[in-house]
Amino acid sequence: MRIITTVREMQETAERLRREGKRVGVVPTMGYLHAGHTSLIAKARELSDVVITTIFVNPTQFGPGEDFERYPRDFERDRSLAEKAGSDIIFNPDVREMYPEGFATYVEVEHGSTILEGKFRPMHFRGVTTVVSKLLNITKPHVAVFGQKDAQQAFLIQKMARELNVDVSIVVAPIIREPDGLALSSRNVYLTPSERERAVQLFRSLKFAEERIRNGERSVAALRTEMERMIQSAQPSQVDYITFVRPDMFQEIELLQPPSVVAALAVRFGKTRLIDNSIINVPA
Amino acid sequence: MRIITTVREMQETAERLRREGKRVGVVPTMGYLHAGHTSLIAKARELSDVVITTIFVNPTQFGPGEDFERYPRDFERDRSLAEKAGSDIIFNPDVREMYPEGFATYVEVEHGSTILEGKFRPMHFRGVTTVVSKLLNITKPHVAVFGQKDAQQAFLIQKMARELNVDVSIVVAPIIREPDGLALSSRNVYLTPSERERAVQLFRSLKFAEERIRNGERSVAALRTEMERMIQSAQPSQVDYITFVRPDMFQEIELLQPPSVVAALAVRFGKTRLIDNSIINVPA
Repeated sequence: MRIITTVREMQETAERLRREGKRVGVVPTMGYLHAGHTSLIAKARELSDVVITTIFVNPTQFGPGEDFERYPRDFERDRSLAEKAGSDIIFNPDVREMYPEGFATYVEVEHGSTILEGKFRPMHFRGVTTVVSKLLNITKPHVAVFGQKDAQQAFLIQKMARELNVDVSIVVAPIIREPDGLALSSRNVYLTPSERERAVQLFRSLKFAEERIRNGERSVAALRTEMERMIQSAQPSQVDYITFVRPDMFQEIELLQPPSVVAALAVRFGKTRLIDNSIINVPA
Repeated sequence: MRIITTVREMQETAERLRREGKRVGVVPTMGYLHAGHTSLIAKARELSDVVITTIFVNPTQFGPGEDFERYPRDFERDRSLAEKAGSDIIFNPDVREMYPEGFATYVEVEHGSTILEGKFRPMHFRGVTTVVSKLLNITKPHVAVFGQKDAQQAFLIQKMARELNVDVSIVVAPIIREPDGLALSSRNVYLTPSERERAVQLFRSLKFAEERIRNGERSVAALRTEMERMIQSAQPSQVDYITFVRPDMFQEIELLQPPSVVAALAVRFGKTRLIDNSIINVPA
């Protein structure tokens, strides 16, 4: 597997692959890969001739006081996992290569970026859509694979790519979970054993919402009250939000409508902030 | 010459040309072509195998009360001029094709976009960098040609393309002038015969600054006073700015430094707002 660290070499490589008629797939990540990421690489493998995994902890999507500095990093482990999952190339630039002195250009989706995660992490999505724009221009893929775990991010990236006419197919792959249901996340490594055990309550609250909706519940207020009670029983340090959004517009709603809804939540255990979500069918 | 009006057909065409090994050049315009534009098409012709001229009056770069609605349009004339100048394709989408319902993604250079034109036309450059990002993604060029007439725009587009890693070469071609020195502009058509005659004073003030700088003047305040006096003698309705910026950073300066400076001005005659500039050598 090839490691590329400069924009120029990555662009020349991607351009050559395209000219040779190869279908290029990319999986943008911040590294510290887990089975969620490797499922995205496997999906890109299915859909492409050449798979590029990008590993870049992107400073512009972290706010002041967030965990940019201590975000977990382990390149050798990532290299091995990416290769086993089917990656042909790792693109691993440093911060100065991506953000030279005086950098001032940002890509922003001015809809759906200030609610949910955007409310608790101002500027976060501007950083995400900017770095993804850059990575798409650098890796020139036919297909780019993102995880449903970051549901709002996936929505905004799809909207950005479509509205800026980026000629790429964006694929969103399902959440991968631990056997007990906890969604995989690089940040799970921060959890103490007790927090890890209690954190499964997030998944349980989503399953509970699914069941209540299947049985006819349509009121977000009612669902939220019950989910919050379940989550509070696990003694989180803070519940940032428990909400329901329309999948097509990522707008918060109070009354569920067919055909489907995204239940999304963000909860802190100790200092660790976890997010999870579920796309739930809403019967007519 | 081929006329393309949809994003999909333009992207498929550009992609096919690239796969065939053709070098693609693009000249983004708002139409109502004049010899300034045709010089850009001729430059693209020199540098490419296939030349695309885009004609799109971009609403997002006009402010409220500006001349979007009355901006001059004449597609048949543009088609003929573009073809004569060497264009192979015209990309001429409508507003809904470029900005579908709910459009909310913007590209912004947060440096150098709030001075000069950006001060008098808030949001103007956000509209410019957004539409140029889109047009580059749609036409997939190897080279894109812009005019020095819009000096600040050219600077910001170069910065945007570089910082978002758009794999394109941006070429900036010189200003084309009437025999008496007035810079060509689609907006010159708005001028009354008297205004047209008086407007030449903009060019004269730039020539005057060149001479004063050649002869040793380094104070912007001194130059501005003299240029303003020259321009006021032509009875403009308003002088928006007369300023000097560093070409490499587009920052206003008060003391000229080698190797060069951009003298830039914006002046209104009646309701018509004209801009002009000159890159002036500053001897050591």
